Amino acid sequence: MTDFQPIIDNITLQAKKQVDKGQVANYIPEISNVDPNKFGISILDEKAQLYSSGDAKEEFSIQSISKVLSLSMAFSIVGENLWKRVGVEPSGDPFNHLSLLEMENGIPRNPLINAGAIVVCDILISNLKNPKSEFLEYVQSIANDPSINYDEKVAKSEKETGFRNYAAAYLIKSFKNLENDVETVLDFYCYSCSIRMSCEQLVKVFYIFMNRGNCLQNNNYLKLPQVKRINAIMLSCGFYDEAGEFAFEVGLPGKSGVGGGIVALLPNKFCVATWSPGLNKKGNSKLGMSALEKLTTETGLSIF
Amino acid sequence: MTDFQPIIDNITLQAKKQVDKGQVANYIPEISNVDPNKFGISILDEKAQLYSSGDAKEEFSIQSISKVLSLSMAFSIVGENLWKRVGVEPSGDPFNHLSLLEMENGIPRNPLINAGAIVVCDILISNLKNPKSEFLEYVQSIANDPSINYDEKVAKSEKETGFRNYAAAYLIKSFKNLENDVETVLDFYCYSCSIRMSCEQLVKVFYIFMNRGNCLQNNNYLKLPQVKRINAIMLSCGFYDEAGEFAFEVGLPGKSGVGGGIVALLPNKFCVATWSPGLNKKGNSKLGMSALEKLTTETGLSIF
Amino acid sequence: MTDFQPIIDNITLQAKKQVDKGQVANYIPEISNVDPNKFGISILDEKAQLYSSGDAKEEFSIQSISKVLSLSMAFSIVGENLWKRVGVEPSGDPFNHLSLLEMENGIPRNPLINAGAIVVCDILISNLKNPKSEFLEYVQSIANDPSINYDEKVAKSEKETGFRNYAAAYLIKSFKNLENDVETVLDFYCYSCSIRMSCEQLVKVFYIFMNRGNCLQNNNYLKLPQVKRINAIMLSCGFYDEAGEFAFEVGLPGKSGVGGGIVALLPNKFCVATWSPGLNKKGNSKLGMSALEKLTTETGLSIF
Amino acid sequence: MTDFQPIIDNITLQAKKQVDKGQVANYIPEISNVDPNKFGISILDEKAQLYSSGDAKEEFSIQSISKVLSLSMAFSIVGENLWKRVGVEPSGDPFNHLSLLEMENGIPRNPLINAGAIVVCDILISNLKNPKSEFLEYVQSIANDPSINYDEKVAKSEKETGFRNYAAAYLIKSFKNLENDVETVLDFYCYSCSIRMSCEQLVKVFYIFMNRGNCLQNNNYLKLPQVKRINAIMLSCGFYDEAGEFAFEVGLPGKSGVGGGIVALLPNKFCVATWSPGLNKKGNSKLGMSALEKLTTETGLSIF
Repeated sequence: MTDFQPIIDNITLQAKKQVDKGQVANYIPEISNVDPNKFGISILDEKAQLYSSGDAKEEFSIQSISKVLSLSMAFSIVGENLWKRVGVEPSGDPFNHLSLLEMENGIPRNPLINAGAIVVCDILISNLKNPKSEFLEYVQSIANDPSINYDEKVAKSEKETGFRNYAAAYLIKSFKNLENDVETVLDFYCYSCSIRMSCEQLVKVFYIFMNRGNCLQNNNYLKLPQVKRINAIMLSCGFYDEAGEFAFEVGLPGKSGVGGGIVALLPNKFCVATWSPGLNKKGNSKLGMSALEKLTTETGLSIF
Repeated sequence: MTDFQPIIDNITLQAKKQVDKGQVANYIPEISNVDPNKFGISILDEKAQLYSSGDAKEEFSIQSISKVLSLSMAFSIVGENLWKRVGVEPSGDPFNHLSLLEMENGIPRNPLINAGAIVVCDILISNLKNPKSEFLEYVQSIANDPSINYDEKVAKSEKETGFRNYAAAYLIKSFKNLENDVETVLDFYCYSCSIRMSCEQLVKVFYIFMNRGNCLQNNNYLKLPQVKRINAIMLSCGFYDEAGEFAFEVGLPGKSGVGGGIVALLPNKFCVATWSPGLNKKGNSKLGMSALEKLTTETGLSIF
Repeated sequence: MTDFQPIIDNITLQAKKQVDKGQVANYIPEISNVDPNKFGISILDEKAQLYSSGDAKEEFSIQSISKVLSLSMAFSIVGENLWKRVGVEPSGDPFNHLSLLEMENGIPRNPLINAGAIVVCDILISNLKNPKSEFLEYVQSIANDPSINYDEKVAKSEKETGFRNYAAAYLIKSFKNLENDVETVLDFYCYSCSIRMSCEQLVKVFYIFMNRGNCLQNNNYLKLPQVKRINAIMLSCGFYDEAGEFAFEVGLPGKSGVGGGIVALLPNKFCVATWSPGLNKKGNSKLGMSALEKLTTETGLSIF
Repeated sequence: MTDFQPIIDNITLQAKKQVDKGQVANYIPEISNVDPNKFGISILDEKAQLYSSGDAKEEFSIQSISKVLSLSMAFSIVGENLWKRVGVEPSGDPFNHLSLLEMENGIPRNPLINAGAIVVCDILISNLKNPKSEFLEYVQSIANDPSINYDEKVAKSEKETGFRNYAAAYLIKSFKNLENDVETVLDFYCYSCSIRMSCEQLVKVFYIFMNRGNCLQNNNYLKLPQVKRINAIMLSCGFYDEAGEFAFEVGLPGKSGVGGGIVALLPNKFCVATWSPGLNKKGNSKLGMSALEKLTTETGLSIF
């Protein structure tokens, strides 16, 4: 068993000293106003031992990381039928291109690009009575933490400025791959992305993907083949156009969000979350990416 | 001067006998319910002599033909500034592809594809107090016919089912090439497409493009270079993916609509409108296209 | 009847004074070494009256202009079968993109883009005993001028550096739309593009497209519908990505070449050729384009 | 430690009974003539224990599997400079599309698509005196088996019919990403793909990717970060358009070839090769894919 504490303390120390921290996302005020000097990291290992360093208890907007959670909930409800409506292949394109969507008849390439997550939200709406509250309860329950919540201001800002998401949703709708109306779907989608969590909360939630579908309280949320499927998707699609690079540099399934969060995991070994608001050119947290590289280099822990 | 009457009578006779009349557009009930056996043709020559045959006095939904009229009104208001927001090149793609739009940063290829007409409508909204009534008055005034009107039922059906138009509009908006909000723009766009006219009314309106910008009452609506520009765009972009084919087969600038109407013209010579609701695979009126081919073959009148 | 002499003398005067003459094509030394200050213009009217100004008797490499001539010869041999192997729609893309070719199964969009001209050359090779000499004789015969010839140095340079042409030819071959082997086809293609002519020779050759298929000596080379087809293709496809712009600004069917030549015509009225080696960003002769704009503006002669 | 023998015996038994074995590749006679009933599987574990079943000693054309070997050799020679000439991202497209290559300026998406492997061959040619013999010696030396050889007939057939490879190579050349001439590069490329190996030989060669760069004789061929990089690329790009599916279903880095071979590995645990000539629609061995699925399902061994 690895003692992660000195490793992550050292990573935090270096991160805090780093001058070029990337660019904070500026498309909505609620996210652009975050202090770029924040840096947090948490690790939860297979014995449920938690290690934290830096601003690991501070909440931030998890944004696209929530796509893994909505996927997880939808997958547990509809099972393999999910793949009739969304693919499992890397997009091979920046995260917002509609061209592929059009060429492939409204079937998004995978559930971790915006278009795919919109379809996943549509599935949840069709299968839940109160999508917003039930999804939140699902996340709270996995984390065993009822304090996790949406950020309504972020959700609203996102909805008001998300013209590309509207374009994608209407394009999908034109191909009859959206059952509910676009407004309803995007409203839920924006709420789901607005969830706030800290690094510590994130590793508790993502523990289920590292621990064969079982949470810290040992309740089962997903079957093992479902967990493996989601991990495979995170590895190949979790980092936009940088997926191949990340797969090599870090070698862990994971997901990033424009709020600066990244979560990743080594099956049966550990789950890690980092937070640093500055992004690199591909839209992934700059210091988070390099923190994960250091972690896997120093520990030798990776899937490759 | 050509006596068009026997020619168009013969064309009508042949059209009425034709068994395969193509497929009536079925995307909204108001258009799919039209009698596929209707066929009308009108010609207005440079001496203002009107020739008509078949159902030339019957009104139908002009649909995309109205794109030339909104373009004409916007062009007369904002002049060359128009081309900062929309191109003049053929789209080289079926009429509903968003890919090009995305690759070209939200600048539609030309004003006669849906995306381009949506931008033109946005320009009109920004420049008119009451866009709907002022645009209708503009058309009525050119035709000197106050009976021309919108079909509200068609406009509403179109708006409710036009998911691709929403997708295009939001994509354009995401590139900041839409000043007004999408709902407002698409509402006006759908109204403009819902205008009903007969073949006789159509040739009266399009007479300005054949007659150097002057209408039958000799009022001037467009400068000569503007007329030439619009004619050039109609020739190269007026028939979706069939533009090249039409340019050859017919050799006249023109525009078709999914309601089965086609209007075309030879500068300084004549203006012609046909109506037959059945469409070919490219979305242009099947009998209308062949009527125009016969007309130019028999008269030898074309630009080439 | 128009007296073109003072008009073209004035155009030449202005062209010679112009400071920014565009950029001479630099991909092969034989073309990049041409004096950028050259400017010539010739007009041949429907009465066979020839007007010339500037360097109108000086030969230059006609390059892509020859695509119209190979098309014309192949069309006269195989007739409408030609259109099974190449389309008639504008490419909607810069002249060297292979993407469309791939999406459309090796059928080039039209015969005036490189890929299309390569297919046309393949057809000529399959139908001629000695393609190079017979094609040259065809051109000489139309012009009634046996001095017209290939420039072997240009042909060889072009073949050696034309990697994109090879890529296009092999892609077409992979779709089984090339009967002969790639080396043979490209060899003939490069020869055909290397033909040298002066403005005066060019208008004599292109006179057949303005004069219903008949040359100055009144021999017939093409049927009228074939001439109309070729003119339609020149109008919509003759100027690469600038076709729509040219159709408006000039309003004449025509074709440009990277050697700085442009030829254009108004059916039954006149044929014009210009030469100025500097190109604009779209690859068309900068001063040639503006000369043609002036000509049609001043004379009011255009198809629109 | 797992006893793989009963597992692979059972897999072979089921494979031999399978009626639908997919379609043998038919583009060259040398490959299409292979008996579709062949099935072999070999496993080499971390203790160098070899397990075999079925036709595991029979040689077949490894085809695209050799791309991993040429990549490995080039990477060991030029190191990280390799990534200036070829990417590491999944292609997100079927294996033969040139469009992406054109949009990305001749930099192939990754070294396991044809275009990428062609660039890798170009690098080897620039760095080796006798590319063909030195590459073969490299492979023989890893396997400690001098009997491994090229199949010249296959290489020649492939070269003569590989028009798309020529198209890709010339397109890359046009972007100046090919140092040597196309004929030389494709000659070497086709030879490299023509190597014949049995399943037993394949696992011996790919043992280095499972064993941190060291072969069975404990000689080192690659540094650990290089091995991890290659494994990451195999996972995300090794199975054409089916990479995402394979990553989930099997969860192992690997590579397939149209000869019907597949090789895959779990770092530090085992290396497996299968051979069954029939392919599924995506071009991967049908029975090979399902054999690997069964193997990982029954043993629970995968990276996820």
